[in-house]
Amino acid sequence: MLEKQYEQGTGHDIGEKHKLKKAAIGIDFGGTFIKMAMVNEEGKILYKKSFSTLPERDKLLEKIIQGIDKTVKNKSRDIELKGVGIGLPGPIDSINGIVRNLTNVPGWRNFPLEKFVRQKTKMPVFIDNDANLMTYGEWRFGAGRGAKNIICITLGTGVGGGIIIEGKIYRGSSLSAGEVGHIPIFENGLKCACGGRGCLERYIGNRYIIETARKYIKKQKTIIPQDKDITPQIISNAAGKGDSVAIKIWEKVGHHIGTALTGLINVLNPEKVVIGGGISKAGRFLFEPIRRVVQQNAFKVATDVCRIVPARLGDNAGVIGSAGYIMLE
Amino acid sequence: MLEKQYEQGTGHDIGEKHKLKKAAIGIDFGGTFIKMAMVNEEGKILYKKSFSTLPERDKLLEKIIQGIDKTVKNKSRDIELKGVGIGLPGPIDSINGIVRNLTNVPGWRNFPLEKFVRQKTKMPVFIDNDANLMTYGEWRFGAGRGAKNIICITLGTGVGGGIIIEGKIYRGSSLSAGEVGHIPIFENGLKCACGGRGCLERYIGNRYIIETARKYIKKQKTIIPQDKDITPQIISNAAGKGDSVAIKIWEKVGHHIGTALTGLINVLNPEKVVIGGGISKAGRFLFEPIRRVVQQNAFKVATDVCRIVPARLGDNAGVIGSAGYIMLE
Repeated sequence: MLEKQYEQGTGHDIGEKHKLKKAAIGIDFGGTFIKMAMVNEEGKILYKKSFSTLPERDKLLEKIIQGIDKTVKNKSRDIELKGVGIGLPGPIDSINGIVRNLTNVPGWRNFPLEKFVRQKTKMPVFIDNDANLMTYGEWRFGAGRGAKNIICITLGTGVGGGIIIEGKIYRGSSLSAGEVGHIPIFENGLKCACGGRGCLERYIGNRYIIETARKYIKKQKTIIPQDKDITPQIISNAAGKGDSVAIKIWEKVGHHIGTALTGLINVLNPEKVVIGGGISKAGRFLFEPIRRVVQQNAFKVATDVCRIVPARLGDNAGVIGSAGYIMLE
Repeated sequence: MLEKQYEQGTGHDIGEKHKLKKAAIGIDFGGTFIKMAMVNEEGKILYKKSFSTLPERDKLLEKIIQGIDKTVKNKSRDIELKGVGIGLPGPIDSINGIVRNLTNVPGWRNFPLEKFVRQKTKMPVFIDNDANLMTYGEWRFGAGRGAKNIICITLGTGVGGGIIIEGKIYRGSSLSAGEVGHIPIFENGLKCACGGRGCLERYIGNRYIIETARKYIKKQKTIIPQDKDITPQIISNAAGKGDSVAIKIWEKVGHHIGTALTGLINVLNPEKVVIGGGISKAGRFLFEPIRRVVQQNAFKVATDVCRIVPARLGDNAGVIGSAGYIMLE
């Protein structure tokens, strides 16, 4: 019925507009893959695809525009697309829509991506740092729902994060806020890739966890195999089977995260800390030591109101947050 | 002329009101002294007094009300008092105007101070944690002027702080935000009075600086006297005379502060960090190592926009901030 009216050109009067369902396109621009999804107002993914991140900027842009065009063309007619949100790995001038730089993807310095996509697609476009939009996704639709102030941490090769303050993404004075991976937990600690010393990331980034694991398995009895590549997943599986070395590794990682969180919670007094990314899948082996260290060290008035919870949207936080932001903010 | 009109009862028409100068009473409630001041819209102190903090709550309240009454009575007639702002040392429910508890002053648990003072004085009253109102003072009238996001740190017996985010005091989800003295700078570091470990305060609170100084002067040649009580002021004076031990003490203190600030700047990306309180008087001996450590360790995109500056209002930040807040917010 609705489709019929559309064909007759009457679908755009106010009465009909109410029957349209709002959705937006969210793009999560990663160093290896570009994920693209159509997401509705409830944060549900209606359609999703992904493709490789091409090294050549203009070809990649073409592929992104083609992807958007196809999504628009193939969408069901009762869906009204509100725009395109794009999260990218690097410093993004979200106010002026300019990619300042991309981590591990050359050729994007100072590229006006918002304007480019807007002109090609004729839709509203919003671009931002991926950690900010993932944080927004978890806050609006995931584990951070209902809270006014949250901190989001993503654990992986790097340790990233975002902050929601009074219901808004907090970007700071030069749009670089939220670098929770670069809180020093040891003054004069190990040198970090960022140039600093003793940063959280230097102790719990994937490769450092694996480094620690290698040391441990040499000395102690464990089911973690010595002869093949260790991954966080292998350590988690071993912990699940009661392996004491694996459990000790997560205990150590959790202690480091708990130390950084103690400072963050004392300073920012959030209602929730949402922890996502690869190693967060270690589950209770990781969350228990984090919570214990925070409980023992942070102010009671702050810990009493703060829940430390796993992220809920998984790998989809980026596309959901990007689409959600352009639709709802 | 204006006074004359007042006497004739014509001073309250709209035309005359414009000629009245706005001011407010600010009260800085300390563990030892209560400071009270009348402050104008430019943050200038027009009148000031202080008295001892009495141990008995009701007597102290009486003294505070008398102090306010006298100030009102003696003020020049061209001044229109907009209210009373009170900063107190402890967790304050600023929304409901209730003192939750005071540090080192017994008998104030859950006291509805805002209502009490409002009913006695018939003026608008606002109460808040003293660190928040000092931060507001420095932001509105002092070293933080013109910035959107600042962090304020007060160095003394304890290490306190406050945060302004997007031009507003940030209080957090249970009104306990801003505890910058309780950021761990060493995981599993020294036990702090707060119950945590490795907190900044545990290394740079006055008594710990003096402890460090005592150790140093035993082993090294210095003009810091061994036979009398050491104070931060004595160490600063010695540093001013080129004493290498004194300079090393501030170097160490600055390094600790710089470590905590690195994390704060990476996470909050503020335009200014304002540092006040007793030991900030060590001046360049303290600020140089702080700035150097931050420069070496924090993200360039964040340090490029961030100035680390001494507070400007000194001991008056509390009364000026308290009065300013009730007048202007």
